[in-house]
Amino acid sequence: RSFVEYDATCDFPIQNIPYGVFSTAANASPRIGVAIGASVLDLSVLLRHGLLSEAFSPYLNQPTLNAFMGAGKGVWTAVRSALTTLLSADCPTLRDNEAVKAESLIPMSEVKMHMPAQIGDYTDFYASKSHATNVGIMFRGKENALMPNWLHLPVGYHGRASSVVVSSTPIRRPMGQTKADDAPAPSFGPSRLLDFELEMAFFVGPGNALGDSIPITEAKDHIFGIVLMNDWSARDIQKWEYVPLGPFLGKNFGTTISPWVVTLDALEPFLVSNEAQDPTPLPYLQENRANAYDIQLEVAIKTAKMEAPHVICRSNMRNTYWSITQQLTHHCVNGCNMNPGDLLGTGTISGETEDSFGSMLELTWRGTKPITLPTGEVRKFIDDHDTIVMRGFAQGDGYRVGFGACEGQVLPAKQ
Amino acid sequence: RSFVEYDATCDFPIQNIPYGVFSTAANASPRIGVAIGASVLDLSVLLRHGLLSEAFSPYLNQPTLNAFMGAGKGVWTAVRSALTTLLSADCPTLRDNEAVKAESLIPMSEVKMHMPAQIGDYTDFYASKSHATNVGIMFRGKENALMPNWLHLPVGYHGRASSVVVSSTPIRRPMGQTKADDAPAPSFGPSRLLDFELEMAFFVGPGNALGDSIPITEAKDHIFGIVLMNDWSARDIQKWEYVPLGPFLGKNFGTTISPWVVTLDALEPFLVSNEAQDPTPLPYLQENRANAYDIQLEVAIKTAKMEAPHVICRSNMRNTYWSITQQLTHHCVNGCNMNPGDLLGTGTISGETEDSFGSMLELTWRGTKPITLPTGEVRKFIDDHDTIVMRGFAQGDGYRVGFGACEGQVLPAKQ
Ligand SMILES: [Ca+2]
Ligand SMILES: [Ca+2]
Ligand SMILES: [Mg+2]
Ligand SMILES: [Mg+2]
Ligand code: NI
Repeated sequence: RSFVEYDATCDFPIQNIPYGVFSTAANASPRIGVAIGASVLDLSVLLRHGLLSEAFSPYLNQPTLNAFMGAGKGVWTAVRSALTTLLSADCPTLRDNEAVKAESLIPMSEVKMHMPAQIGDYTDFYASKSHATNVGIMFRGKENALMPNWLHLPVGYHGRASSVVVSSTPIRRPMGQTKADDAPAPSFGPSRLLDFELEMAFFVGPGNALGDSIPITEAKDHIFGIVLMNDWSARDIQKWEYVPLGPFLGKNFGTTISPWVVTLDALEPFLVSNEAQDPTPLPYLQENRANAYDIQLEVAIKTAKMEAPHVICRSNMRNTYWSITQQLTHHCVNGCNMNPGDLLGTGTISGETEDSFGSMLELTWRGTKPITLPTGEVRKFIDDHDTIVMRGFAQGDGYRVGFGACEGQVLPAKQ
Repeated sequence: RSFVEYDATCDFPIQNIPYGVFSTAANASPRIGVAIGASVLDLSVLLRHGLLSEAFSPYLNQPTLNAFMGAGKGVWTAVRSALTTLLSADCPTLRDNEAVKAESLIPMSEVKMHMPAQIGDYTDFYASKSHATNVGIMFRGKENALMPNWLHLPVGYHGRASSVVVSSTPIRRPMGQTKADDAPAPSFGPSRLLDFELEMAFFVGPGNALGDSIPITEAKDHIFGIVLMNDWSARDIQKWEYVPLGPFLGKNFGTTISPWVVTLDALEPFLVSNEAQDPTPLPYLQENRANAYDIQLEVAIKTAKMEAPHVICRSNMRNTYWSITQQLTHHCVNGCNMNPGDLLGTGTISGETEDSFGSMLELTWRGTKPITLPTGEVRKFIDDHDTIVMRGFAQGDGYRVGFGACEGQVLPAKQ
């Protein structure tokens, strides 16, 4: 229990302590904080006043989390332990120091969140079997839905690091080439099939040198934490461009992540067994431990006419066939070098039921089953000025470990 | 003419002045230099002694070229002009200053080259029609060789920035999953079909904000310069993994670039008309100027038994259907933000004749026409300990604007 007050549905209890980068009107320098209740605890203030050890300064007195991510488990554990103590109701150090408390605890409503890390490389996987099957049926028919490789390796592709943005950044509807099936030639204009993809993504901690790899048994120690991710997708651009080298401009106009990085330490109690993998993967991908996270996820839409977001999808991070550790190990089994701050997305997390599909493409089955909203508005894909809000949390006994919001509003295309 | 001496076949005459990042045994700090003859001119020394204006210091007193790349055409022109004057036979400033000359002109054999820039994002295109057709025939048959989109847009995909390395870095043969057509399941082991891809790549100068784009008429001003690139490829890994999201581990174990960035200013005299594009591209890709570069390219192989590299491919950068300006404009037409130091590859540059194919895959037609080397050794793909050396130059009247070498030796897989 913390001396900071919050209720049982708060995303940021003392069991969570997620890391983020923020600034304030009074101090525009981006710096590292943790979320607690409805506040941000400014770690630079704790360091300055000696409430956190000087030894942590190289990792925490930074404008990004990269150095901390790269520091590894020993440092992560020590800092988490120190912060848990400082925030606990029993410890007087911060609790009774009114001056430092006033300076270091800032209402969340008063901060501006920044990207938690400088992302060197961003990769997106395709790890939900339901999603891969759904998309496969729509693009290639039921017979060829899952490609032959899908059950043998976590399929993934490189994405664009520069356009990964933090929650609340507006997303401009992309212009691009599209071609209707019956059109003789492609045309140019705003995407008409703008979509979201409900994903989780993890930040790499310590990396590996080029030519080395990370065995599956060590992969977990190379993962710092997890965020929500919306992999915005322009289905019409994607469909025309993606053969044979994969998605490109249909994806790289923007990818939104939630600002608070929830550590694997905080998520450890929510590990559950993954579904059995059949066929058994090759030895380098075999993992004999609970490797899935029971994290409830939802997607809501808020149109310009709506007062509050309306939930259109409920899923769970368990709906991934390949674990995040399998994704990481696969990524560097060929010697590809990973770096602290690299971001790896799971791919769209769709469950088996129709209300758990993680994209409009699947929810409206390519527009054939439009969604009617409480306002009477109808959506096949996302319209201009719509806001998409993703949320997620793991339910503990009387508390939640939550992720905050991953949201973005769509602006009209620039023509 | 320069006071530094070199002959007519030198890659680095005064007409070139390419930029690179180097260090020496005496000074391990990476710093910016230009190549002239068989020497490197250390710009940090010129700045320290006031031979280059203090105003250039923020761009040139750096461990990478990113700031200079981002500075834009005005600064590029001013620095090139200043260096051309300083290096010319007529100007006494550096020529007659024995002390500064001794300190700033370092034999190329004594320097270690570093990556010229920190690459934020790396993208690879697929812009040679011969290459796309050859690969298409081999992977999908003659009827479906060129995909329907290929003539309408420069097909490209995101690559891995972290594993782009500078010439002379050894490349470890990757381990990975492969599946023979007649095997019931995939297996794991060293790639057996390791290949090179002869490419050119360009560094982005000033970028664009997320949501903006770069019109084709302005694209050239956003390109700093060009290097040679070897996009090492593991064909067996690539074949099994690439459907439907594109190449991944078959590519990201290493990509080699030449260390000297040749500016578009130096290459301006070698602009030639590109082949006519039919069908006419959409307006945003239309370009009414000479936009192809007449740069002669070659690939040589040197096995452990050979004394000198043996040329196995001669091509030309003209063998690209889509220009580099079309590639850049297409990349950000959807609002994708480009940054100084981003690297964009052209894709394998194959010509129409069999000796101009830019990969072993094409040269040996998937191993069906092995190459016999002067030693009597036979190659279908690349063996361990083989070195691949790429070179290129534009031929002027009595001089060459060259790229130096882009080379790398293959080390045995780590098992
Ligand atoms: Ca995705
Ligand atoms: Ca390539
Ligand atoms: Mg995206
Ligand atoms: Mg490569
Ligand atoms: Ni001196």
